[in-house]
Amino acid sequence: MQVGEGGLTLVVIGVGLIGGSFALALKRAAKVARVIGVGRSAANLQRAVELGVIDEASHSAAEAVKRADLVLVATPVGQMGRVFAEIAPHLPAHCVVTDGGSTKSDVVALMRQHLPAQLAHCVPAHPIAGSDLSGAAAAQYGLYDNRRIVVTPLPETSPAAAELVRELWQACGARVYQMSAGEHDAVFATVSHLPHLLAFAYVDAIVGKADAERCFDFAATGFRDFTRIAGSHPEMWRDIALANRDALLVELDTFQRTLDALRAELQAGDAEAMMQRFERARAARHSWQQKFNRGNA
Amino acid sequence: MQVGEGGLTLVVIGVGLIGGSFALALKRAAKVARVIGVGRSAANLQRAVELGVIDEASHSAAEAVKRADLVLVATPVGQMGRVFAEIAPHLPAHCVVTDGGSTKSDVVALMRQHLPAQLAHCVPAHPIAGSDLSGAAAAQYGLYDNRRIVVTPLPETSPAAAELVRELWQACGARVYQMSAGEHDAVFATVSHLPHLLAFAYVDAIVGKADAERCFDFAATGFRDFTRIAGSHPEMWRDIALANRDALLVELDTFQRTLDALRAELQAGDAEAMMQRFERARAARHSWQQKFNRGNA
Repeated sequence: MQVGEGGLTLVVIGVGLIGGSFALALKRAAKVARVIGVGRSAANLQRAVELGVIDEASHSAAEAVKRADLVLVATPVGQMGRVFAEIAPHLPAHCVVTDGGSTKSDVVALMRQHLPAQLAHCVPAHPIAGSDLSGAAAAQYGLYDNRRIVVTPLPETSPAAAELVRELWQACGARVYQMSAGEHDAVFATVSHLPHLLAFAYVDAIVGKADAERCFDFAATGFRDFTRIAGSHPEMWRDIALANRDALLVELDTFQRTLDALRAELQAGDAEAMMQRFERARAARHSWQQKFNRGNA
Repeated sequence: MQVGEGGLTLVVIGVGLIGGSFALALKRAAKVARVIGVGRSAANLQRAVELGVIDEASHSAAEAVKRADLVLVATPVGQMGRVFAEIAPHLPAHCVVTDGGSTKSDVVALMRQHLPAQLAHCVPAHPIAGSDLSGAAAAQYGLYDNRRIVVTPLPETSPAAAELVRELWQACGARVYQMSAGEHDAVFATVSHLPHLLAFAYVDAIVGKADAERCFDFAATGFRDFTRIAGSHPEMWRDIALANRDALLVELDTFQRTLDALRAELQAGDAEAMMQRFERARAARHSWQQKFNRGNA
């Protein structure tokens, strides 16, 4: 890994919660010498400079990456193809390219399509630090403390490039895991993308009801928590759902079979079957919560 | 309303979060002179006496209610028929009977069945103060501060009985609303019972997967909030679902139509339709959250 004199230059394309927090954490850890932020919104980039999230703002990804040792593409997944195509002709030969997308098979496919000469330096990654906040102002130093990062290197990825990305995420305080893009997408369809789909559909179904207003009036804390993720960014989640469509349809159908079975039990008044199902779910949820608390303690 | 000399005697059947917190709040407000707690667990009743939640413990609802001015039946909904039948022959003529059940049409039907002579003193109610805690130790003074209580009086209910129950809940700090039992059950099927069903089904579907363990390993805060209610009491929620079966099946089918539409959009790659749906849901969720925050400020 050749690095420019005086330390690493990081280019963050998409300076929001994910990209901005990565930049902040690496600055604190003294792992980067210079951060160039690229984005569509002048106001957001200006704010990022003021907050010290980035050192320099640029509206041209093509220009910015010419000086990069590492590029983090932290835009919504739906924009990554365009970004890869734009930066491809301008990447220095040694430059490592990583991303912060929530889906990985599609990012791998886009890298193969647009960055064929750079595959040895491509390290797809997914930092698991969800939030419904967005914009540079949402960036925070501690976002990745003890969070999980999944990296899904390609067969072509060089060990040095994978190691650099792993090391930088570890410097952010994160725990780094590795799996294939396909394994990643199945797991996240289950635990993240499907619940978002269900929460959006659930709230949207209420919106269409004649007594919607009264329903919302009496919704309480259970509703609040169950639907929190329906407050997430619509464009981002639409892109994620479409990007991971195949895995998501599989997970949706798996869920549907369980829901159909539960509906049949309810209709038949099969108290025993419902009880077993609810107890199984509660036991799993409780043991998950304990593990999650330990992991985040 | 005749009340025994020296103030009201309250009998709480089922001394847990709901019943215990009602007793504590009324004691603090000096609205009751004596609280008798009835329950199946000697240890729980002993704890309730120690904690000052109740003044006296009894294992016989029939005996306890002989001295009651007001009876709160705060057992799971599935036990209420048995409780009503047991207390019916022993209720003083003036005694007001209310409940803390999460469904109301079924409670009304049970009151009509078991308490036909007492209907003028029956005031079905639903305190909306969900929690996955249970037992007397979960009782707390402030549980009902600013919470909503729905009362669903019968046509036969006397204004005086309804007024007593309203006044006591207000003394607990709660806001009291009135609607019909049918209206209540439709609203709560939508905003409470259906999400519980979906959360239980969702977690149960994961339990059945070959890669369940890895899925749980990578579940994060979105999963945590979406599934919190799958940690709820299985027996209580099975009883609620069965008690409110008709309304719940209607709500489930309404949700299913929206989910089917979303699945079709996803499969067809209809980005625009998905975007509209997600935006509609997010807007509704945001405006709900703002109202909820104001209401609970």
